[in-house]
Amino acid sequence: MIGIFDSGYGGLTVFKEIRKLLPDYDYMYLGDNARAPYGGRGKEKVTSFSREAVKFLFDKGCHLVLFACYTASSLALRELQKEFLRAPGITDKKILGVIRPVVEHAAKHSRKGAIGIVATRATIDSKALETELKNLKPELKIFPKACPLLVPLIEEHWHKTPEARMILKKYLRSLKNANIDTLILGCTHYPLMMSDFKRFFGKKVDVLNGGKIVAESLVNYLERHHEIKSLLSKNGRITYYTTDDPERFFEFGRYFAKVPIEKVERVSLS
Amino acid sequence: MIGIFDSGYGGLTVFKEIRKLLPDYDYMYLGDNARAPYGGRGKEKVTSFSREAVKFLFDKGCHLVLFACYTASSLALRELQKEFLRAPGITDKKILGVIRPVVEHAAKHSRKGAIGIVATRATIDSKALETELKNLKPELKIFPKACPLLVPLIEEHWHKTPEARMILKKYLRSLKNANIDTLILGCTHYPLMMSDFKRFFGKKVDVLNGGKIVAESLVNYLERHHEIKSLLSKNGRITYYTTDDPERFFEFGRYFAKVPIEKVERVSLS
Repeated sequence: MIGIFDSGYGGLTVFKEIRKLLPDYDYMYLGDNARAPYGGRGKEKVTSFSREAVKFLFDKGCHLVLFACYTASSLALRELQKEFLRAPGITDKKILGVIRPVVEHAAKHSRKGAIGIVATRATIDSKALETELKNLKPELKIFPKACPLLVPLIEEHWHKTPEARMILKKYLRSLKNANIDTLILGCTHYPLMMSDFKRFFGKKVDVLNGGKIVAESLVNYLERHHEIKSLLSKNGRITYYTTDDPERFFEFGRYFAKVPIEKVERVSLS
Repeated sequence: MIGIFDSGYGGLTVFKEIRKLLPDYDYMYLGDNARAPYGGRGKEKVTSFSREAVKFLFDKGCHLVLFACYTASSLALRELQKEFLRAPGITDKKILGVIRPVVEHAAKHSRKGAIGIVATRATIDSKALETELKNLKPELKIFPKACPLLVPLIEEHWHKTPEARMILKKYLRSLKNANIDTLILGCTHYPLMMSDFKRFFGKKVDVLNGGKIVAESLVNYLERHHEIKSLLSKNGRITYYTTDDPERFFEFGRYFAKVPIEKVERVSLS
């Protein structure tokens, strides 16, 4: 199975795109809602929470785990790849993140080399996206901006209000002044405000749909890694797990997934 | 020692008032920042997190633990009082919450008996404040309103912006229409917007400062319970614990406490 892990609901916007391109596989989606959001937490906590999530998904029979969360991908991915994939006996497992594909796309397609990044405070502070972009192309000019209020606004369904648009404008002003040509939405919640980002910047800025890019990259990954692909079952089954109230996940999750969520099971990670 | 427990920083607004009235005691403040905010979580998680916090503070030598958090007081206090204080060997310990004193004050002083409550979603959904008010005075008319965006706005220092005032106005409109005469700020973050609440309602509504009421009630409690009071040490020492990054607690905590925070230690509860 393919395991998709996020701190909460945001990863469902990525999962939605993955299922469009790869509808036949079996999936487990794990939302650590009891400890979400990760976006304001330190590296140590995000790593230890993510470690428990990876262990859970591997134990459940996943061979491929995708961190559908920029905060976990920024703060914990590299360390956990080392820990889990180096351990003896674990050669049939992989952990992937969302940063690499998005960053490669941005570096490749940016016309003027001026790239903005919007994300949670933890992701911005980690400089993970910035560093990977610079590694790919040192001459890029990067403009990071933490937008910590967007996640609560989206989770409260307030993101279509004038207040949310005013807050968004304040966040984005410095990026407009910097004349960026590409914007990375470095948080899986932000695609729910895609039209507002696009309206603010107009046609001059390419606002990247990370979910779609990550999904395309996963298709490509499986083409190149038959040793993993051959281990993945294909019955089109999806199982949802949450560390908080399943009813709540059922209710709020639908709104991110854009499709009904059938069955949600509560699990304890710690 | 007296233990003060909150999901994060909010309890510092209560602690500030307590120290004004009772400056000589020794205190431990525990913020479960790694798992904050509790305001959107289910009863089960809030209870299990609070259980770990109480155990930690009792183990550290506290004889009195105050839940300086409306969500924990609403969802977990009663159950944990039963669990901890009924256990054999634990007769020298007490757990108090913030709801009882505030509710008693409101029921006593409300002129027309029309009381508004603003709080997190979890606190409002629990109906804890509402139920206690009705128990004291069944004829009271209660108007609850969840205001889930206020905590993130305050934690991001955005609460003095026009956007925050617009959001606050939207939240409060129904309470103004209901002609309340008393408003309970059922979340320890909200006193940081006290002046905005007061400005919105004008002189006709008594906006209660919960921190001050809780502090006065604690003074009164100690006067009536010498068996606990006699166990509390008095060296004016304060120790801060957080489950997340101590640096972050140091930086953000000052802003709620309104005084410098000297030393913060990281602890693990789970």
